[in-house]
Parts: sequence; C-alpha cells; structure tokens
Amino acid sequence: MPDGGNSGVKAGIGDDCSILRIPAGRELLVTTDYSLEGVHFRREWHAAEVAGHRCLTRGLSDIAAMGGEPIAAFLSLALPPKLPQRWVDGFMRGLLKLAGESKVELAGGDTAESPGGVLADIVVVGSVPKGKAVLRSGARPGDRIYVTGELGGAAAALDLLFSKERLDRDLFVRHFWPVARVGIGRSLRQKGIASSMIDISDGLSPDLAHICEQSGVGAEVREDAVPRARIGKAAREVGLRFALHGGDDYELLFTSSKPVPRKIAEVKVTEIGRVIRGRKMILLDAKGRRRALRPAGWEHFKR
Amino acid sequence: MPDGGNSGVKAGIGDDCSILRIPAGRELLVTTDYSLEGVHFRREWHAAEVAGHRCLTRGLSDIAAMGGEPIAAFLSLALPPKLPQRWVDGFMRGLLKLAGESKVELAGGDTAESPGGVLADIVVVGSVPKGKAVLRSGARPGDRIYVTGELGGAAAALDLLFSKERLDRDLFVRHFWPVARVGIGRSLRQKGIASSMIDISDGLSPDLAHICEQSGVGAEVREDAVPRARIGKAAREVGLRFALHGGDDYELLFTSSKPVPRKIAEVKVTEIGRVIRGRKMILLDAKGRRRALRPAGWEHFKR
Repeated sequence: MPDGGNSGVKAGIGDDCSILRIPAGRELLVTTDYSLEGVHFRREWHAAEVAGHRCLTRGLSDIAAMGGEPIAAFLSLALPPKLPQRWVDGFMRGLLKLAGESKVELAGGDTAESPGGVLADIVVVGSVPKGKAVLRSGARPGDRIYVTGELGGAAAALDLLFSKERLDRDLFVRHFWPVARVGIGRSLRQKGIASSMIDISDGLSPDLAHICEQSGVGAEVREDAVPRARIGKAAREVGLRFALHGGDDYELLFTSSKPVPRKIAEVKVTEIGRVIRGRKMILLDAKGRRRALRPAGWEHFKR
Repeated sequence: MPDGGNSGVKAGIGDDCSILRIPAGRELLVTTDYSLEGVHFRREWHAAEVAGHRCLTRGLSDIAAMGGEPIAAFLSLALPPKLPQRWVDGFMRGLLKLAGESKVELAGGDTAESPGGVLADIVVVGSVPKGKAVLRSGARPGDRIYVTGELGGAAAALDLLFSKERLDRDLFVRHFWPVARVGIGRSLRQKGIASSMIDISDGLSPDLAHICEQSGVGAEVREDAVPRARIGKAAREVGLRFALHGGDDYELLFTSSKPVPRKIAEVKVTEIGRVIRGRKMILLDAKGRRRALRPAGWEHFKR
C-alpha cells in the first residue's frame, strides 16, 4: 500500500512555482530525465503516445529505484513551430494516462519553441520515509544480485528498428510501453530486503557498474542466470548482449543478504550472481569460465 | 534573514534520485525553466558564463516571486557533440558562481547529447512556511501596484543586439547579469506586505495580465510612474515600450494594501498604479487620458 498519502500538490500549473506538501517524517526525492527527439526517440518509430509514456516512465523508474512513492511530475516541453497539434495531443495523452495510473499529478513545467525537434524534460518528485531511501551504495560482499522481469527486450527491439523492420507495438511491449517498477521498489524498501538498488535504464552492465562503484565492491554474474526477454511473434529469446548491455528495460537491479521472494507483484525476481570483494565485474559462463564483464551501454546500439 | 536553514540536500548527484530534507512546517516550491540556444540565448551574443548565470536566474526568480527560499537546483543539459569543452566549463562556472552566491546546491540533473544547440532546463526547488507562499491570485481592488528596480533594460539591450550592435556587458548589466530578487520577495512575504506577486520575466504588461487573470481584477497603470532603466555609456532612459512590454528583467511586480517602503535591500520600489474592479488593464498618460494596456511580451521583440 502507498504510504505517501498525505503528500500532494497544493497548487499546480498557473503560478510562478507549484506548491507541494511533504508530510513530516519523509524526505523528498527529485529526478530529471531528458527525452529528446533523435536521441531518445524518433517520431517515425515511436507514436506520440509511446513517446509520452516513455518520457514519464524514465522519471518514475528513478523513484522506483529508491523505493520511493512518486507524487508529482513537471514537464518542460519545447516544440518545433510546425509540429502538428495532434502529435502534441497524443504525447500528452500517453503521458497523462500513465500519470493517472501512477497517481502522479502533472503539477507544472515550462513550454518553449524548439529550435529543432521535440524536446521534453521530465521532473518527477517523490518521497520516502526519512533515512529509508535505497541507495546505490549499500551493496556488501556476500549479498546476492537480483533483477526483476526479463532483460534485453527494449534494446533488441531498437536493434530491429535500426534494421528498418516495422514492429508491432503489442509484440514489443517492453520497448514501446515499458513499466516502471514502482510497487516492487516500494515493497523491497518496506520489507528491508534490498541493500542497494538501481533501475536498469542504461543496461545491466553499466548499471551494475554504478552499484559496484558507489558501494566499493565487485560483482560476479552467471551468464545463464540472466533472464532474457522473449520478443516478437515467435517469442524468440533475445541475444545475451542485449540482456547484458541493452538499456531502456526499466527493470530493477538490487542486492540483498536476505531471503528474496521469487515473485513480487506477479513479476519474476531472478538471482543472477553475487557481490564480491574488490572492484571487478566478472561474467561466469555455463562451464564456470570467468571473463571480465565490461560496462557497455545503450550507446553500443547507436549506428 | 533566511528561515529555511534546516532544509538541505542529503544526497546529490550519484544516485537514481537526489534526496532533500524539507523541515516540518514548510511547503515545497518547484519551478522549471528552459534556456535553449537560439530561443533564450545566442552563443554569439551571450558568453558561456552569461548563459549559465541567466539560466539559473530564471529559476531563482520564480522562487523569489512566491516569497520562497531556494534550496537546490537540478540541471538537465544537452550538448551538441562538437561544442568546445571550454564553453561547457564557462556555462557551469557562471551557473555555479550564482548558485554559490544564492546558497543553492546543484543537486542533480541529466546530461544528453543534443540533436541541435545547447539545451538547458533548470529546476529550482525551494520552500516557504506552510500557507505563506505569495500567489498571483491575491490582488484585490484598491491595492496599489508596485515594481522593484527599473524596467526595460534587458529588452532594450536585446533590441540593440538584434540591430547588430556589440554591447559592453558591464553597461547592460540587467540583460547580461540579471539579479533574481530573492531577498526582496522573502522580505515582502515575511512582513505580509504583498497581496499578490509575480516576477517580470515575460514583460510588465503580460505579467500584470497574469495577476489580473488569477485574481479576477483589473489594473490601472500610470505611464509616467513606470520606472525606466538607463542603459549604455550615456545612461540613456529606455523607451516606454521596453519598460511596458520587455521581458527578462526579473524584477518583482506585486500588489499591496499596506504601507510599502520606498527601498528594500537597497533596491527602489515604485508605485505604478492600482488594482481596479473588472478585468481591464488601463494605461493613464501624463494628461490623464486612458487607453487599453494590452499584454505584449518578449515575442514582440523577435525579428
């Protein structure tokens, strides 16, 4: 159950600032994420609703990764003068539908004329009980490493888009309609399960590297344990490189020394390795051979 | 004196979200403002430090207009691949210098590659005692209308820039180094002087129109009472149209039914008219002739 019920937007759009109430005993979470046309989305690939949905998902996912409750979103939106109004309407429809489902109020932002392409910057404000935010810095040697859901689906779809394939949005759901794991993040925080947490927005390898860096630890990942997404009509399993390095999945990566349920809120949770001393990230193959796991992110897929 | 001393940044850059503490008894203020190359600034007109300074000023000024205390800033910055690093360094230097002077911590943000031009979105978070934010909606018929400082200096400089004049930054301070009136806004709120307030970012006429709209009132402005900026080597007074419609001055416009000091924190405060019933904005000339004051903003100066 949400425990941020007392927070809320007291005054939204229409004044110099928006006014929010944060209940005593809670700390504030703030995250900002760009969604730029030609960088994070393309109008020929992503329908307006999809672009709006993905824009807000980026912010919600950061709140999820702290174990927080989202409260309000702020959208800075710059639009090219000749953009059809129906595109803007679609973008806002996609964003506001997700905001409604997530009980997040769009409480302000800015608008401007864009010198080129649609430029969106989403700010999401949330809260968490004082001192309870799940940080990237809490992983300890011996902790096990877990991920929610399956990985690589979003990046594998992107790869197909680059190959000029036309994709059915409903068969590539994790690319077009990603889901921020807000409820799962909150549950992991409330139950004190996660010692550290991050959302997989850049890719498993770079995001695990962030955990290692902030916690001062290393990691050992079992290649065959990494849950790979199935995509398309044939429900084909994605290649390992997409699961290891592909971004935009918005699953949660966390570490824990405690018993972890195999499912949380109907979503599979998979143990993929363990936290080790040192600073290295190691990949173990099925035969037990070890090689370095190097952070390679979304940029990997740019062409 | 600042009264937000207990607020602060608990965790800044380096996690999924930044964590802020807001003391009990205070409400949160949030504002976001784009500074886009080619729209809000031009690299050939505005040195990197100036662009960074003006970027943060936009956000601080919105906090000032609520009578709030700024706490933290978040910067989403997208940069073209070929932008010289020294430009980025200069931009950050200008922004961080002002942040330091304003006791605002840069607590997070996002970075991205820009598809065209420097794109900055500044988020400023502040706080104000519960229920004490000065809104746009509090103006009542009979209140007097006041502005801080002098108007039109920023827009008149912009007009000269459009005419291809090269300007000495130190002679056109209000354009290149605008000052958000945070201390004055806070003082007006603490003393309960302002019934409504807004910052003059779009221009006196459009910003006064926002007050009228949100308060459900009209306004009568005495043309010869509007304080006009003096610019350039000759300290020439700017034309009336700049003072009435020019943006980017970041002075405060407020209404009050109480005695108002002629100076606050060394800055002149000038009575320029009064709030009236109805919804019309009227301009009175020196001979007492009345004409409609129509909102005309910054766009007015685009060529």
